[in-house]
Amino acid sequence: MEKMTVTFQLSLATIHHQFYSHSMIIVCVCVYVCLCLLPGGFISTVCCLILKLVSFQNVGAINFFCNYEESRGNYLVDVDGNRMLDVYTQISSIPIGYNHPALLKLMANPNNLSTFVNRPALGILPPENFPDKLTESLLSVAPSGMTRVQTMACGSCSNENAYKAMFIWYRNKERGHNIPSDEDISTCMINQAPGCPDLSILSFMGGFHGRTMGCLATTHSKAIHKLDVPSFDWPIAPFPRLQYPLEEFTRENAQEEARCLEEVEDLIVKWRQKGKPVAGIVIEPIQAEGGDNHASPNFFRSLRNIARKHGCAFHVDEVQTGGGCTGKFWAHEHWGTDDPADIVSFSKKLLTGGYYHKDELQADKAYRIFNTWMGDPSKNLFLAEVLNVIRRENLLEEVTRSGKALLNGLYELQAQYPGILSRARGQGTFCAIDICDDATRNSILLKARDKGVLLGGCGDRSIRFRPALVFKEYHVHLFLNIFNDVLAQHK
Amino acid sequence: MEKMTVTFQLSLATIHHQFYSHSMIIVCVCVYVCLCLLPGGFISTVCCLILKLVSFQNVGAINFFCNYEESRGNYLVDVDGNRMLDVYTQISSIPIGYNHPALLKLMANPNNLSTFVNRPALGILPPENFPDKLTESLLSVAPSGMTRVQTMACGSCSNENAYKAMFIWYRNKERGHNIPSDEDISTCMINQAPGCPDLSILSFMGGFHGRTMGCLATTHSKAIHKLDVPSFDWPIAPFPRLQYPLEEFTRENAQEEARCLEEVEDLIVKWRQKGKPVAGIVIEPIQAEGGDNHASPNFFRSLRNIARKHGCAFHVDEVQTGGGCTGKFWAHEHWGTDDPADIVSFSKKLLTGGYYHKDELQADKAYRIFNTWMGDPSKNLFLAEVLNVIRRENLLEEVTRSGKALLNGLYELQAQYPGILSRARGQGTFCAIDICDDATRNSILLKARDKGVLLGGCGDRSIRFRPALVFKEYHVHLFLNIFNDVLAQHK
Repeated sequence: MEKMTVTFQLSLATIHHQFYSHSMIIVCVCVYVCLCLLPGGFISTVCCLILKLVSFQNVGAINFFCNYEESRGNYLVDVDGNRMLDVYTQISSIPIGYNHPALLKLMANPNNLSTFVNRPALGILPPENFPDKLTESLLSVAPSGMTRVQTMACGSCSNENAYKAMFIWYRNKERGHNIPSDEDISTCMINQAPGCPDLSILSFMGGFHGRTMGCLATTHSKAIHKLDVPSFDWPIAPFPRLQYPLEEFTRENAQEEARCLEEVEDLIVKWRQKGKPVAGIVIEPIQAEGGDNHASPNFFRSLRNIARKHGCAFHVDEVQTGGGCTGKFWAHEHWGTDDPADIVSFSKKLLTGGYYHKDELQADKAYRIFNTWMGDPSKNLFLAEVLNVIRRENLLEEVTRSGKALLNGLYELQAQYPGILSRARGQGTFCAIDICDDATRNSILLKARDKGVLLGGCGDRSIRFRPALVFKEYHVHLFLNIFNDVLAQHK
Repeated sequence: MEKMTVTFQLSLATIHHQFYSHSMIIVCVCVYVCLCLLPGGFISTVCCLILKLVSFQNVGAINFFCNYEESRGNYLVDVDGNRMLDVYTQISSIPIGYNHPALLKLMANPNNLSTFVNRPALGILPPENFPDKLTESLLSVAPSGMTRVQTMACGSCSNENAYKAMFIWYRNKERGHNIPSDEDISTCMINQAPGCPDLSILSFMGGFHGRTMGCLATTHSKAIHKLDVPSFDWPIAPFPRLQYPLEEFTRENAQEEARCLEEVEDLIVKWRQKGKPVAGIVIEPIQAEGGDNHASPNFFRSLRNIARKHGCAFHVDEVQTGGGCTGKFWAHEHWGTDDPADIVSFSKKLLTGGYYHKDELQADKAYRIFNTWMGDPSKNLFLAEVLNVIRRENLLEEVTRSGKALLNGLYELQAQYPGILSRARGQGTFCAIDICDDATRNSILLKARDKGVLLGGCGDRSIRFRPALVFKEYHVHLFLNIFNDVLAQHK
């Protein structure tokens, strides 16, 4: 790194929790003014910016400030001009790298201006090109068996509304598709059953599905996400804890998966007896925030069958796995089934949130799944172009190639540094590796950044790799060399 | 209307609920193809588009498709070229009209390109100009007593996260700001108390705060919003049912407000005894979706005091009232107090969602209020420019002037058509009037549209007026004339 910004910034981040009271904010502003008056060069722009922001926001999670204008492809540039190979891509949400020429060109087209300037209420007054743009973008990559899609503004809203769709579907089934009773109508207004029924969603320990209150009841990744927020008494199943590489432990892993599937069935029965039947099961194809936990195609196919057997909807959350990073457009395509799910939600690399669903999961009336914006057509515009680039540049093949090189490189490093690394795993470039402990993990993340590589953590002590789809074999080797240097320092 | 689109489109909307099965979709596509092959002119573009969309989305709420390129200022143009005076503005979310030159100019500035093309994870890697853009935009209109702001992608996410901030604040108080216990940490992972505590938010009958599951537990506007979705057992207070014009019924209205305030205190006590203490109270300054229900400044000041007395946070939801439409930037400014709230949430006319909060409502740790995008800097860019326009063109004064003309006009029409109209009410241009019954209301909305005025309903039988801030007295008179014509047909 050209300037000694990171350490100072991190220490600020750790003390920022003190900055609550007005007096502390005044102290903070004074420090900021003093620092900015010092001769330039010593105190970095990053420090000045963080001291500005701390007066009106929590900055505890800020890594640094970026110069997005100067960032290109796989390289993120910070405000001090440091250029980093980005293997984290804004928590896995930049599909084809920074400032891709195709997206810049789209912005230069005057025909697109109006889409950015006039954001419509899509549910009531969509623009003329809305059906075509959906067809070009989201519908052109619809999961198998799904012809319907609903856009939403972010990942959490997508899952919240997918859950609602499952509840509505389940209750309509229970009612025999008759109109709701007067009691349904009157009780729902005051949050009581039967109008607001005691239904549940079954989720998995280690899962992450967002942070709004419905989603949060199915999120079980870290305590900090959930602490102090009221929740629902919904069933939580164990997610298989597999041994890696998967192909070397097939027998042990199959046993572990069978144990989890059995527990799922038990929970469904138990919650039905409790009077809180499971309307839907939600799962990630690879648990991401929870520590990059994989399961076999057979596990997911069996789970899908269990859902069908017990009359629960099956919701696959592809917010982090979707968009090509596993080498297929959707991670569930690796399961080898034509009927992977009833609902598939997405966001991040898709640039818009939303969910696909089967015909029967369509709410039976307008205004049941609804809000003011229901997405943003300007994001559909970008997505259509991103998909063009993915096809034109065969990026899924690139991901498969780069992913193989990355995973092989991780295996080699793991053999070389057995005291530090373990459990290398991945699909496409969606890879991860465990570090011996949390402190070493964090030290490695910082040292890598000092050497020009931006990485992210997940779970208790994993590093996750989330490059853009334009991350080539060349970038893999660049990364592996630097990672090797960092590890050598820790040996 | 130039073409006979609306009636046909509406009939389609009513039958669309049948279009669930694959076979019905095939029928629908066949109808679409046949219609499109007919000689042009008879079947409108709108019909063709809706038949396209019905194959992959619920279209029951679609009014028509728009040509946003050709829309200007207060005038929305549909795909058939019909030009309508827009008094609804995308459910109150277009602040300064369609295609405002200032926003088009902003798009033409190449320095802004990168902000649109590279959406950052704002919570970890904000752009260099992020603190300055927040200062120029949201912080320049911060409510009294609030110096901190958190952006979010939409109104529901804003309220969800505001609720979380209140829960976190409340539990930290309860813990004496000590670190959470091991039991807190372990129980929260499985959705159980004390980690996921039995806290509640007090809301009001008729209120609307969004449709994700936390928000929805505080929404009590229409059954269709809530039916079949599990909810929380949270207290719901009556919202004053006042008589209009407010100044003619001060004594009766004060009594009604006192009754509601008493009930609020009773509920707070009752829910504390139930073991589900009220962490926060949420209310709209004018209940919008619920039927444009007003209350007096004294009511809100008293409620704010009740919240303080009982140790509850006070959350004012300005998603629909914020942004200038009441003649002040925030509707709560009409209350005449320096300390209106602990949290104020916004979205719609602010173009980005989010909430302001007092210092003490700041979450004590990073990653407690967090998600991937945490808003969208491109929306802050637009908002800064919108605020410039509001100041430069004195739009709040314009709104006050137009609002007076509008309300006076509604009073006159109400006197003229006492069998149809009643309860004209409003603040700024945020006005409404009741129609004798639901069927007449809907017929009036359709007839107004046929005559080139786009209006929206709210509550059981109200019409709400939600023009942009550029709606001048000239437009008021234009609207009143047409409205008069429509009413004359119903007399």
